[in-house]
Amino acid sequence: MSKITDHINQLREDFMKGSLNEVDIHKDPFTQFEIWLQQAIQSEMPEVQAMNLSTISDNKPSSRIVYLRRLNNHKFWFYGNYDSKKGKSLEENPNASLNFFWPELQRQIRIEGTVKKATKVNSDNYFNSRPLESQLGAWASAQSNKLSSRKKLENKLTELKKQFKGKEVPRPEHWGGWVLTANYYEFWQGRKSRLHDRLIYELKDKNWEISRLAP
Amino acid sequence: MSKITDHINQLREDFMKGSLNEVDIHKDPFTQFEIWLQQAIQSEMPEVQAMNLSTISDNKPSSRIVYLRRLNNHKFWFYGNYDSKKGKSLEENPNASLNFFWPELQRQIRIEGTVKKATKVNSDNYFNSRPLESQLGAWASAQSNKLSSRKKLENKLTELKKQFKGKEVPRPEHWGGWVLTANYYEFWQGRKSRLHDRLIYELKDKNWEISRLAP
Repeated sequence: MSKITDHINQLREDFMKGSLNEVDIHKDPFTQFEIWLQQAIQSEMPEVQAMNLSTISDNKPSSRIVYLRRLNNHKFWFYGNYDSKKGKSLEENPNASLNFFWPELQRQIRIEGTVKKATKVNSDNYFNSRPLESQLGAWASAQSNKLSSRKKLENKLTELKKQFKGKEVPRPEHWGGWVLTANYYEFWQGRKSRLHDRLIYELKDKNWEISRLAP
Repeated sequence: MSKITDHINQLREDFMKGSLNEVDIHKDPFTQFEIWLQQAIQSEMPEVQAMNLSTISDNKPSSRIVYLRRLNNHKFWFYGNYDSKKGKSLEENPNASLNFFWPELQRQIRIEGTVKKATKVNSDNYFNSRPLESQLGAWASAQSNKLSSRKKLENKLTELKKQFKGKEVPRPEHWGGWVLTANYYEFWQGRKSRLHDRLIYELKDKNWEISRLAP
């Protein structure tokens, strides 16, 4: 067995940081999500807004980190280039899953739902809140397309800086938001000896049904 | 806008920790993976072996954290209950994706490939290396099935402790390994102003072709 396999085999933490009980959780999973997100923010761990987004294309899953930028009533917003691989995948199949993993709290939140494009107003508002360099980046980068060199991207950015100097940078048509509406949540709390707590919420006839899953 | 949305909107780190150049990376992506994994281990961040596994079931993606427990020559092993949701999904569709996200290093590694069950010998070897309580946990828990209460799981474990007292715990038939064989890798290094470095490796006629993607 290789040294690195040997090492990762020995990484085995016994999760003791918390527990999750049916009596403690909120009956609404979005509120429960906000409670855990708030606790994650307070714990000051890095990149609390990072979530794994999984999409399907050509009957294959693909996953990447995106940032949660807005949330409201079972809706979760993220932003990017509509012509990127994830944009095309979501066009083809709107089913998607999110996963927040917060190892410092020994917690995971799995969310499933369907994705639509955000409204233009929503996309404009978020775009306008970004720093100038990120706004120019949205113009400079044909996300997920092959790029012959990094230099080419940097040159494009320099050119755009001149072009937009002293002007407001408008949102490119190909850049904007998506919003996932959740129909399934799992709250996962690591426990001792791999006997983790897993509570799920399923949407049935407009009601959220709570169940415990075996770990 | 809610206070929490307002807060996550302001989380915006300018990634300055590294860069990724065509001339610096190894021509073999598995070796490049080992190099980054080794650096992640050395950085002493938590849960370096945690990876997001995405699978497809019923034309919907789902994702969860699993642990990388063995790796060798483009193969990545993880373990669990074959009757769990991920087990059934992988039976239905062997396409899967992995995502390692290491915020402390501002790095992400995305891997895609196909999954098979590990050999019985491999599953036995790993099962035998686990602590006793985790071995009993594999017998106690019908993973992903609904559970009427946590108490029921704990009682089952107490019963199993008596049953196996002083005996070796054999691997249950329904518990074992899977191995993903990679056909695609992306190495992502966060850079300033969202102009991240993204280098991908695609398997073409048994050769790994390297390209840069626009961020």
